[in-house]
Amino acid sequence: MRTWLLLLTYCGTRYAGWQVQPALPTVEGEIEKALQQLTGTFHKVLGSGRTDAGVHALNYPAHFQSSQNLTPREWHKALNGLLPPDIVVRNVVEKSTDFHARHDSIGKRYAYLIHNAKERNPFAENRSWWIRQSLDVKAMRMAAECLVGRHDFSSFRARHCNGPDPVKELREITIGKTVSPWGNLIIEFEANSFLQHMVRIIAGTLVDVGLRKRKSISIKGLLKQRDRTQAGQTAPSEGLYQLAVHYPDGLVSWPKELLINPFRIIQNSEELSK
Amino acid sequence: MRTWLLLLTYCGTRYAGWQVQPALPTVEGEIEKALQQLTGTFHKVLGSGRTDAGVHALNYPAHFQSSQNLTPREWHKALNGLLPPDIVVRNVVEKSTDFHARHDSIGKRYAYLIHNAKERNPFAENRSWWIRQSLDVKAMRMAAECLVGRHDFSSFRARHCNGPDPVKELREITIGKTVSPWGNLIIEFEANSFLQHMVRIIAGTLVDVGLRKRKSISIKGLLKQRDRTQAGQTAPSEGLYQLAVHYPDGLVSWPKELLINPFRIIQNSEELSK
Repeated sequence: MRTWLLLLTYCGTRYAGWQVQPALPTVEGEIEKALQQLTGTFHKVLGSGRTDAGVHALNYPAHFQSSQNLTPREWHKALNGLLPPDIVVRNVVEKSTDFHARHDSIGKRYAYLIHNAKERNPFAENRSWWIRQSLDVKAMRMAAECLVGRHDFSSFRARHCNGPDPVKELREITIGKTVSPWGNLIIEFEANSFLQHMVRIIAGTLVDVGLRKRKSISIKGLLKQRDRTQAGQTAPSEGLYQLAVHYPDGLVSWPKELLINPFRIIQNSEELSK
Repeated sequence: MRTWLLLLTYCGTRYAGWQVQPALPTVEGEIEKALQQLTGTFHKVLGSGRTDAGVHALNYPAHFQSSQNLTPREWHKALNGLLPPDIVVRNVVEKSTDFHARHDSIGKRYAYLIHNAKERNPFAENRSWWIRQSLDVKAMRMAAECLVGRHDFSSFRARHCNGPDPVKELREITIGKTVSPWGNLIIEFEANSFLQHMVRIIAGTLVDVGLRKRKSISIKGLLKQRDRTQAGQTAPSEGLYQLAVHYPDGLVSWPKELLINPFRIIQNSEELSK
């Protein structure tokens, strides 16, 4: 048995999320179908984390084990020939048999994209969250600062989330303007790992702050309450993009230019605070 | 009768182009339908130029005349309330009755977007032209230089193009890397006006040069031949974006921040020539 690590990019719009579900199209399901077509046998594909229905992924690691003797190049070309146009394999490397795309991860990065403008963006359907009212980005940044660090994020997890430990280390939240055909405001999140819906609930709560429905400083109390009902709405899934999974030094070494992030943050905070 | 100038952004994917055609969805048709619903009477809408089926527009001027006494704000809000999500009015201003969005134009700007990578881009469907083989951007730039200036562009017009004058002043072609979720190579064109399919035929011919199927210098001969059959293929419509229409000083004065261009050119030519 050999272990193969895939680097994937997918548009989540057509899928009921990463994980296989009976009778629904899923990203994992499409890859397993392609592997079945290619090899004639079932291969279980293990993702680096579940993404919800409609969530997109830019640099998504997943692995599978196989007794087939194909080269990385052969897996790569054959899979892309069989996969639908909204899922693409961008790299294939062999790993040691005990490698696990999810268990070995030590950090994850997501981006939440907002189109903040009075008018709808004709290109942004299923790609970002449209917020008509002007957002106070300075207040959102102050609120975000309260969340950075090691905290119990029970207020920011889905009610049915069954992760064993609500304490996560949120290493960074960056809020910036971006120039993209789909949105103009981006929030990037990095943590050791995330609870279910954590990014989307934080994004929804930060938007409440941006809309002045909630004070920046109130976020401190919200963390202490450990009560999901006190936080903001779960931001819509179509604005969420998986960006990166981090592994211990040397375990996975993709060349930097392989990892894509089309949402360049413009760091001019003056421009933003207008 | 008062004359109203609209600034529009639309995604062309669902439409058979700008101009009304019987039994087909068109952008002009959608706006006339919205005006009919709003006012109860037919208003002819005059665009600043025809766009083909599938072509997108970022900052597209169009005008209409009406005896209705609505304010710019009322037209603006009412039209956006009635238009489908892939067409948006971004500005409305009143002009003198003799204003004409197309006749008064003195220059136009388009962008052609390419996804140049071995693998498909899962987000780029109907948004750019996928070219798998690596493009020689230096050679494309040299070829583009031969086209800049006042020339007879008969080799670069659709066979059925009935524009009276094949001589156009191509003021600029800029080829650059871009970071966008849909493509990574952009060609921007500016001219006093364009012949039918001119941008797409030039883009197709420049791609031939980039693929080394044609020499940069051959473009000079191509211009002289005045023969459409000698130029490259018409690049697919979905990569084409209308960017701007220019008017004489003072005739139309939209604030700069109103005009959008999500395809920022990275001017680092070193990076490109690798």
